[in-house]
Amino acid sequence: MTKVLLLVEPKTEQLQQLKSEFPTATFTTDPADCRDAEIILGWKADLAATILKNEQLQWIQAKSAGVDYFPLRQLEGLGITLTNASGLHSRYIAETVSAYLLIENRGLRPVIKEPGQWIEPAVLETASQRVIIFGTGHIGQEIARYCRFFGMHVTGINRHGSDDHLSALFDDVITMQQFAAEDELLVTDYVINILPGTGATTHFFDEKHLQKFTSGYTFINVGRGTTVVTSDLQKMLATGYLRSAYLDVFEQEPLPASSALWRSPQVIATPHISGLMQHFRVALYPLFVDNLRRYFAGTHLRNVVDYQKEY
Amino acid sequence: MTKVLLLVEPKTEQLQQLKSEFPTATFTTDPADCRDAEIILGWKADLAATILKNEQLQWIQAKSAGVDYFPLRQLEGLGITLTNASGLHSRYIAETVSAYLLIENRGLRPVIKEPGQWIEPAVLETASQRVIIFGTGHIGQEIARYCRFFGMHVTGINRHGSDDHLSALFDDVITMQQFAAEDELLVTDYVINILPGTGATTHFFDEKHLQKFTSGYTFINVGRGTTVVTSDLQKMLATGYLRSAYLDVFEQEPLPASSALWRSPQVIATPHISGLMQHFRVALYPLFVDNLRRYFAGTHLRNVVDYQKEY
Repeated sequence: MTKVLLLVEPKTEQLQQLKSEFPTATFTTDPADCRDAEIILGWKADLAATILKNEQLQWIQAKSAGVDYFPLRQLEGLGITLTNASGLHSRYIAETVSAYLLIENRGLRPVIKEPGQWIEPAVLETASQRVIIFGTGHIGQEIARYCRFFGMHVTGINRHGSDDHLSALFDDVITMQQFAAEDELLVTDYVINILPGTGATTHFFDEKHLQKFTSGYTFINVGRGTTVVTSDLQKMLATGYLRSAYLDVFEQEPLPASSALWRSPQVIATPHISGLMQHFRVALYPLFVDNLRRYFAGTHLRNVVDYQKEY
Repeated sequence: MTKVLLLVEPKTEQLQQLKSEFPTATFTTDPADCRDAEIILGWKADLAATILKNEQLQWIQAKSAGVDYFPLRQLEGLGITLTNASGLHSRYIAETVSAYLLIENRGLRPVIKEPGQWIEPAVLETASQRVIIFGTGHIGQEIARYCRFFGMHVTGINRHGSDDHLSALFDDVITMQQFAAEDELLVTDYVINILPGTGATTHFFDEKHLQKFTSGYTFINVGRGTTVVTSDLQKMLATGYLRSAYLDVFEQEPLPASSALWRSPQVIATPHISGLMQHFRVALYPLFVDNLRRYFAGTHLRNVVDYQKEY
């Protein structure tokens, strides 16, 4: 019997479905079973030490797209396969980013930051704006779809450049190398960061990189807080080089209640909720069940994390 | 010479264009000319008495879609034609409504009403939601286009019911009469009000009408504040029958800083900005110039207000 530990609690009918479809497996929700489960759905930081001693463990299915909270080097060393939940959250993140864009363009930021004033705020013409998105995977593609519906011009930045698929979804795609080599300022109204938290992206958005765009733009971070030098970001908000920032992720999480970011009139800070889903288990289980079928059939799993790229 | 008074200040190049295209007219921006101008672009409440004594006046082009701030009965009695600016603001109002919808669905309301808390707010599944829009004109159609892009099911309510054009833009269209006669609660997640302020719509949204929908919905008002009984709305927020409200217009404007609506955690109040445009004159003048051409050619003007309907 293959022991499968479910650290994301299944609904009753989901558990029944698992049991009837995979009769050669036993399903458990007892965290103590992390000692000898062959497959684990989800992760708990306080079980890490025990999990890393589990010699039966073959595969972990993460419930998130980002996997920066896993001990990647150790899992790689132990030969454990890690799969992520990339794709599930894309639509929700695109909706959150759209909320940010429209709050800014419709002049709602000063109104909701300081309610009670009958003012005529500055508004912006969405359909004439440019957006640059760092990351062209599932999430970047979905954000691009929303931005183009709003009439915006969308540039994607990734490692490998464009292809037929991406060229249909973005107005332009450039590589990180081209971005780094660019001498002229990139003209944009928004920079949207969805880069994963990896060794290569740590503190990527420092003063130098934040100044590679024309001044007066808005920075949106729904990737990882570690990709930004927060003090540089705050400095550039203070000088006005940055018009505003919408931040869902932070170098330190939870963001302390005392942080000036919560109170700045230029900033909307949100508590790492951009990809939150109302029916998370409904969406996660089909991905997990599909991967379980593949596991037992001995075929390739979907969404396998590349330990070199760290995503 | 036909005297044309411009109460919406033209840009230099707009004034030059008017003068060269209409050599038989004189263009003025001096409010004193409201005494004898034949045509007026815009309106100022403090000039009303003088304007109503102007026997030369033939036509007023309003700069807004709603015309409830004009003395309609008197203008009708004097035989003056009034045209509105319906259509110009539709996209902006649809963007503002989209901001409201996505703020609500992505759980941003509690976060931005009380910043500093690291919470996991309730989120809602946009693509499974229903929206009912009161009004199926330019603005209602544009809101419907955005809502359907978001995957929502959209019902329109108007005076005359559906036609080929509307049936392509809305999932359903019902008449105000059908709405009034309906015994069962209408299932919905959002009610969006864009009704104009007229005798027929005054206090339409009272307790009785607000209770014709299933409980737990969100009310959005980007029409006119006079269409709502604010105390009834507040009562229904307090009981939880209404989940929340996004209000851009109010019975009393400006909404006093002391109003509880600014501070309620269930309400996002904004200062009548849903249709605000960055380049307002750029958009308004082409409509006005087109109507001027029609005026001098003696053909029908666009957007003529029906004094019976009051819009």
